[in-house]
Amino acid sequence: MIAIINGPNLNRLGSRNKTIYGDFTLAELSESIRGRFPGEDFVFLQSNIEGELINFIQQCDVSGDFSGIVINPGAYAHYSYALADAFRDCTLPIVEVHISNIHAREDYRSRSVTAEGATGIISGFGAESYMLGVMAIMNSVGK
Amino acid sequence: MIAIINGPNLNRLGSRNKTIYGDFTLAELSESIRGRFPGEDFVFLQSNIEGELINFIQQCDVSGDFSGIVINPGAYAHYSYALADAFRDCTLPIVEVHISNIHAREDYRSRSVTAEGATGIISGFGAESYMLGVMAIMNSVGK
Amino acid sequence: MIAIINGPNLNRLGSRNKTIYGDFTLAELSESIRGRFPGEDFVFLQSNIEGELINFIQQCDVSGDFSGIVINPGAYAHYSYALADAFRDCTLPIVEVHISNIHAREDYRSRSVTAEGATGIISGFGAESYMLGVMAIMNSVGK
Amino acid sequence: MIAIINGPNLNRLGSRNKTIYGDFTLAELSESIRGRFPGEDFVFLQSNIEGELINFIQQCDVSGDFSGIVINPGAYAHYSYALADAFRDCTLPIVEVHISNIHAREDYRSRSVTAEGATGIISGFGAESYMLGVMAIMNSVGK
Amino acid sequence: MIAIINGPNLNRLGSRNKTIYGDFTLAELSESIRGRFPGEDFVFLQSNIEGELINFIQQCDVSGDFSGIVINPGAYAHYSYALADAFRDCTLPIVEVHISNIHAREDYRSRSVTAEGATGIISGFGAESYMLGVMAIMNSVGK
Amino acid sequence: MIAIINGPNLNRLGSRNKTIYGDFTLAELSESIRGRFPGEDFVFLQSNIEGELINFIQQCDVSGDFSGIVINPGAYAHYSYALADAFRDCTLPIVEVHISNIHAREDYRSRSVTAEGATGIISGFGAESYMLGVMAIMNSVGK
Amino acid sequence: MIAIINGPNLNRLGSRNKTIYGDFTLAELSESIRGRFPGEDFVFLQSNIEGELINFIQQCDVSGDFSGIVINPGAYAHYSYALADAFRDCTLPIVEVHISNIHAREDYRSRSVTAEGATGIISGFGAESYMLGVMAIMNSVGK
Amino acid sequence: MIAIINGPNLNRLGSRNKTIYGDFTLAELSESIRGRFPGEDFVFLQSNIEGELINFIQQCDVSGDFSGIVINPGAYAHYSYALADAFRDCTLPIVEVHISNIHAREDYRSRSVTAEGATGIISGFGAESYMLGVMAIMNSVGK
Amino acid sequence: MIAIINGPNLNRLGSRNKTIYGDFTLAELSESIRGRFPGEDFVFLQSNIEGELINFIQQCDVSGDFSGIVINPGAYAHYSYALADAFRDCTLPIVEVHISNIHAREDYRSRSVTAEGATGIISGFGAESYMLGVMAIMNSVGK
Amino acid sequence: MIAIINGPNLNRLGSRNKTIYGDFTLAELSESIRGRFPGEDFVFLQSNIEGELINFIQQCDVSGDFSGIVINPGAYAHYSYALADAFRDCTLPIVEVHISNIHAREDYRSRSVTAEGATGIISGFGAESYMLGVMAIMNSVGK
Amino acid sequence: MIAIINGPNLNRLGSRNKTIYGDFTLAELSESIRGRFPGEDFVFLQSNIEGELINFIQQCDVSGDFSGIVINPGAYAHYSYALADAFRDCTLPIVEVHISNIHAREDYRSRSVTAEGATGIISGFGAESYMLGVMAIMNSVGK
Amino acid sequence: MIAIINGPNLNRLGSRNKTIYGDFTLAELSESIRGRFPGEDFVFLQSNIEGELINFIQQCDVSGDFSGIVINPGAYAHYSYALADAFRDCTLPIVEVHISNIHAREDYRSRSVTAEGATGIISGFGAESYMLGVMAIMNSVGK
Repeated sequence: MIAIINGPNLNRLGSRNKTIYGDFTLAELSESIRGRFPGEDFVFLQSNIEGELINFIQQCDVSGDFSGIVINPGAYAHYSYALADAFRDCTLPIVEVHISNIHAREDYRSRSVTAEGATGIISGFGAESYMLGVMAIMNSVGK
Repeated sequence: MIAIINGPNLNRLGSRNKTIYGDFTLAELSESIRGRFPGEDFVFLQSNIEGELINFIQQCDVSGDFSGIVINPGAYAHYSYALADAFRDCTLPIVEVHISNIHAREDYRSRSVTAEGATGIISGFGAESYMLGVMAIMNSVGK
Repeated sequence: MIAIINGPNLNRLGSRNKTIYGDFTLAELSESIRGRFPGEDFVFLQSNIEGELINFIQQCDVSGDFSGIVINPGAYAHYSYALADAFRDCTLPIVEVHISNIHAREDYRSRSVTAEGATGIISGFGAESYMLGVMAIMNSVGK
Repeated sequence: MIAIINGPNLNRLGSRNKTIYGDFTLAELSESIRGRFPGEDFVFLQSNIEGELINFIQQCDVSGDFSGIVINPGAYAHYSYALADAFRDCTLPIVEVHISNIHAREDYRSRSVTAEGATGIISGFGAESYMLGVMAIMNSVGK
Repeated sequence: MIAIINGPNLNRLGSRNKTIYGDFTLAELSESIRGRFPGEDFVFLQSNIEGELINFIQQCDVSGDFSGIVINPGAYAHYSYALADAFRDCTLPIVEVHISNIHAREDYRSRSVTAEGATGIISGFGAESYMLGVMAIMNSVGK
Repeated sequence: MIAIINGPNLNRLGSRNKTIYGDFTLAELSESIRGRFPGEDFVFLQSNIEGELINFIQQCDVSGDFSGIVINPGAYAHYSYALADAFRDCTLPIVEVHISNIHAREDYRSRSVTAEGATGIISGFGAESYMLGVMAIMNSVGK
Repeated sequence: MIAIINGPNLNRLGSRNKTIYGDFTLAELSESIRGRFPGEDFVFLQSNIEGELINFIQQCDVSGDFSGIVINPGAYAHYSYALADAFRDCTLPIVEVHISNIHAREDYRSRSVTAEGATGIISGFGAESYMLGVMAIMNSVGK
Repeated sequence: MIAIINGPNLNRLGSRNKTIYGDFTLAELSESIRGRFPGEDFVFLQSNIEGELINFIQQCDVSGDFSGIVINPGAYAHYSYALADAFRDCTLPIVEVHISNIHAREDYRSRSVTAEGATGIISGFGAESYMLGVMAIMNSVGK
Repeated sequence: MIAIINGPNLNRLGSRNKTIYGDFTLAELSESIRGRFPGEDFVFLQSNIEGELINFIQQCDVSGDFSGIVINPGAYAHYSYALADAFRDCTLPIVEVHISNIHAREDYRSRSVTAEGATGIISGFGAESYMLGVMAIMNSVGK
Repeated sequence: MIAIINGPNLNRLGSRNKTIYGDFTLAELSESIRGRFPGEDFVFLQSNIEGELINFIQQCDVSGDFSGIVINPGAYAHYSYALADAFRDCTLPIVEVHISNIHAREDYRSRSVTAEGATGIISGFGAESYMLGVMAIMNSVGK
Repeated sequence: MIAIINGPNLNRLGSRNKTIYGDFTLAELSESIRGRFPGEDFVFLQSNIEGELINFIQQCDVSGDFSGIVINPGAYAHYSYALADAFRDCTLPIVEVHISNIHAREDYRSRSVTAEGATGIISGFGAESYMLGVMAIMNSVGK
Repeated sequence: MIAIINGPNLNRLGSRNKTIYGDFTLAELSESIRGRFPGEDFVFLQSNIEGELINFIQQCDVSGDFSGIVINPGAYAHYSYALADAFRDCTLPIVEVHISNIHAREDYRSRSVTAEGATGIISGFGAESYMLGVMAIMNSVGK
């Protein structure tokens, strides 16, 4: 089972700036993921609250049911050292994904403080970033 | 056809710090890529010279034979604004990949000035970073 | 209908440092706003939780019942890029207000990262900052 | 009597970048202000010269005829410590206004060194910024 | 009564990096505190959510039942100006504690923005940091 | 008609540091320009006052008589955002010139904040910088 | 003959913040200087306009009547590179004085960019700073 | 035996700024420490000389008579990398203490370069900081 | 004879971003230069390799056949201290040119580290920048 | 009685870089001071040791025999926060003097961290800086 | 066998700025090295191309014929992270040498990013820097 | 005669972190130096006190008995501008040495402010750094 976690404002996909984030909704994105990987179970979670994202990660880790986490931390990527600690403490592989290329936008977005605690980061491929993230987990990347 | 370009010091894979870069050689890596995507043609290029990497990218772009470029710019990622310009000028999708998680090492490595000109960046998955990069190209990510 | 949203620690108005924040409570402030604009409907919301402020903004935007939002993001103004994204994604006019003059206090307070996503900012007029914010909404400032 | 002071380049309103500054001239803006507050006397001043802005502020303060000053310091807001001192030395309430949202433009514009000496700042509401500034003075904001 | 508040990821004590944080769980830590100070009442609170920590602090302050607060804000110490404001607004003595020596780890950890609002800070003594914090409260340090 | 505008301290050419600025006076410089371009009309202006330079630029723009402006903003180049705004607002081509190579002197001189608003910049060729600036205007560089 | 030049806001001495600047007016200060040095001729100049201060300095230098200049550049000290150039170009000894200790106030005041071009700087002695400046000139400090 | 070492200006306790440092003298402080811990031996040392503090620390370490060191490095905490090296080289537990909360004063005081070499740091509890430091040593904190 | 040297990515003129760099090819640009200065001999060189640019400059200098060099170092201008040293060591006049106004683009482009070693810099005039550069050489600017 | 304290390397006056520091020895300087103020008693002290300078200042303060201190802290001015604290704690007026103009040398010399604790600073007048310092004390500048 | 590698612009020794770099040519330098160590074999390499320096280092390492490398990376020392990686990956001892004292020149030269990957650095002794580097290798310094 | 001066904490060689500093004592190091250069006289000095190091350097310079100084300033290298001045004022060649490679450790160690005043710097060769330093002196490096 793989957890797909989305952070702040990603529940607005489809109505957010479509040039940057694409025109699919979060529900459609989740559906696409399931469709692409029919043999894999997924749990989807979204929250705008930093601490709830930490809660989710901890629960996945403790449950023993997950092989990895694909997370788009949204803007928390740029300042949440608490989330970064949750990444570090988690024993599962964690793939940080971003829809847009964070290196090609505002200065503050080019730096991810959470990525330091992740296994790796995939950024800039639209919805495909999530697919690549799932593939990374399935190919058993280590922590 | 997809170009796999490797930058400075990556010809030393296998003898470089293995904890960081893994114990496979560049030849083995190239072989693995071919093995994973048997239906796809690849061209492999490596150079330690910044300007030759720019030359390669320009030639791929002009040739009309390539659907995309997967490039590990090595340490040039952190200061080569010339390479970044080559990325920007190129009309092909360019996926920047890194073997190690650049956000989890020295400070200067956490920033990629070339990624700004790329389609996207994949970092931290070992040899798998290249595989994911190829998949990104094959799934037709736009520029 | 106009939403008046207050962020962290503003539920302590009246007992917080009175030299800086005045001696009125949040309830009294809300009452003053209603009293000043008898013909307008208001919804008042306060939360110390960053993500709940994002939730509120999204709900206001989606509901279709609001002509604008007046928000005092408190200290989140100085580092919450997630809240700034919520401002940007919201289609309603958003007026950021501060009771004290944020430019005349500690260095870190002189910079608002959320204001970038707002229509405009009003700072330094005590409770009157909110009144001016409401007037700005009523005078139909665009987004 | 309220002084409306405009700094550098604001005499070019109407021909300056209209996307940012609107399509009204300074004369039209002044007329609008008079029209909106028919019971209040206004003195309008504009200068491109930093020191003349200081002179104006000092004269207003010394004259004893003014209840407050609404000033758009233009680009001097971002570096004129001399103007900031004039704000501080002035015993009248001073409201700094900006037509555009200074937090949503170039980096150097997001910081106002003069606002530190002002009573408060209103930024981003187009011509309405001035109106709100006048209202702030009329509602007797303290210094 | 003394409140012992723990911030993000501290519920994972015992499984987090043990070299840094020790091998005791949060429950064991709480038990140790009770055991060391048998004559004192304690309330223990943990949350990963920044705003809930603010809520807790406000409730302790308002309740009138507490003589002080010992709080480990975890990573929020390094960027939560909202929490710092809650510290400042609180009339009880607040002792900020850290298990590890924050000055001997990553650069960003050497700076506590919340400590500015606290009475004092104790860092680097493992579980003993909490004990010293309680002693500080019991010896009636002022705010 | 082309305006040749000189900023602060350039009226002292000939007695200023001759190693840096050459041994010609401003009058001699003006005469040389006329001599080099006998078929072109020139207006020469010098002021030490930042706002007067803005006034001059605005008047040239409004008059309709000028095909371009060659301006040496002197030290104002390094901090006058007000002058930069005047450059930006001006519809005429503006060529910023410097006698000395600003990149080869003190650190603060290597950055021109006004050049951002100019068409282009020519620096380091002594009196010849002005001649090249005039030629740039005559060759109809666009704004 | 010695020139005593005062920059922005110093015409407000006596009504400016008296804790910082003392309770004497500029006229009284001038009178005190004359009284202290009865055998010396003085010219007193004040302007809020940066460029006029440059004009004054140039005129003193050219006139041949002055043995030196004592100047309080006010806040221009902290950013006027144009004034600094005027200092450098002037062949007379120039003593920069400040009433308050600029090193003991706001950060931006602790740095004088104009002092670099002066002979020396005297700061922190109230009105006495001017007296010491005059004595420095009279004791024939070199440029 | 525990060494209590005090750095620069701490011999002036009692006459230094009493709001910040309290109204007790260094002798009284030493007496209080002895009084609080009657069963423990103490050696008290004070010096204004950075290198003598290093000498003291080395002697304590070499002597074999000490179980730990409580040291208030005064302002050396903020720049003495030499003292930090002495902390690191010392095999005894070293507790750095400060009377005032160094995070709530000038910017430069919020950073302790020596704390990096210490076991831990206790700051903000007045004379009580020393007591807590002694307790930390007595509870056998490791190095 | 004058050398016209072009750095990285300038061989792609005509297909690079045309809004910024114009729609002429490098060959057309070279032809234009010859056409404009029929009495002058030119050597044209382009390389993407930093060290080859250094080689070219050294060869021009040693050959004794050149009266000067016009060079567009492309992005190397912003970080190549090696190229800057080659500029400094060269005894010929070197004019650095840029097609676009480097002060009006990304932050990192506003600074030229190579210009420090050049005679002067001309930036922002499109193809005309090269023409002005040639004229500067022909008018015998000194090194 | 006035104390004249000299810091590191000032015992080498006369053999140090004479362009910067003049060609007088420290003994000659002391003699000049006595000669200039025959009615005043002086104590002269020099040390290369930071802590001894602190000791001297404390002794002067405690002795009750001094009306003020003139001190040239040498290079300690630029980093000795410990000396700055000694200045602050001292109840006597302290005049910091420098032989050279510290604002016209290396960057690090333009900032005096000790001056913040002094009454005022006099810099750039050679030996005359000391004379002016003594006059400042004699004219009873306050602390 | 010891490799002596020289980076950019060092082929111009003898004609480069002789005050800084001495008046010997690179050939003379090489001859001097051979002369000083008659019993040792040397290979001399120079290139202006960053990547060729990397190539050389890799070849030396792989060949098995070398006991160490003495390299003067010229200006690449200040920004070539790619060269630094080559240093790190090389198993031979590498001594970085500089003719001039890099700490006594421009700011950017005081930092060597390549030295981090070297065994050690020797800077400031003219041609003697190379001799000392060879001696370091011969005395078998470890990597 | 050559002086070998050691700064803070170097008297602890042999017990300090041996991985970094080696396992020899300072006495053994001194003995090795004598052993390696039997024909040369040495004076060995060590102090933890910054000002005593200055005293030593001055005495060596004045005595006329020394041909040069080899000094390991320890951590003072990173902030002692006073020591740097002593280096500059000294007429003897001064070689700064470090046992470890200061460029490969903490950030603050990669910068030596004292090296600016030295003839040259040798860093990273363990005890051999001293030997190379002595050889540099013996080969008559100039100041």
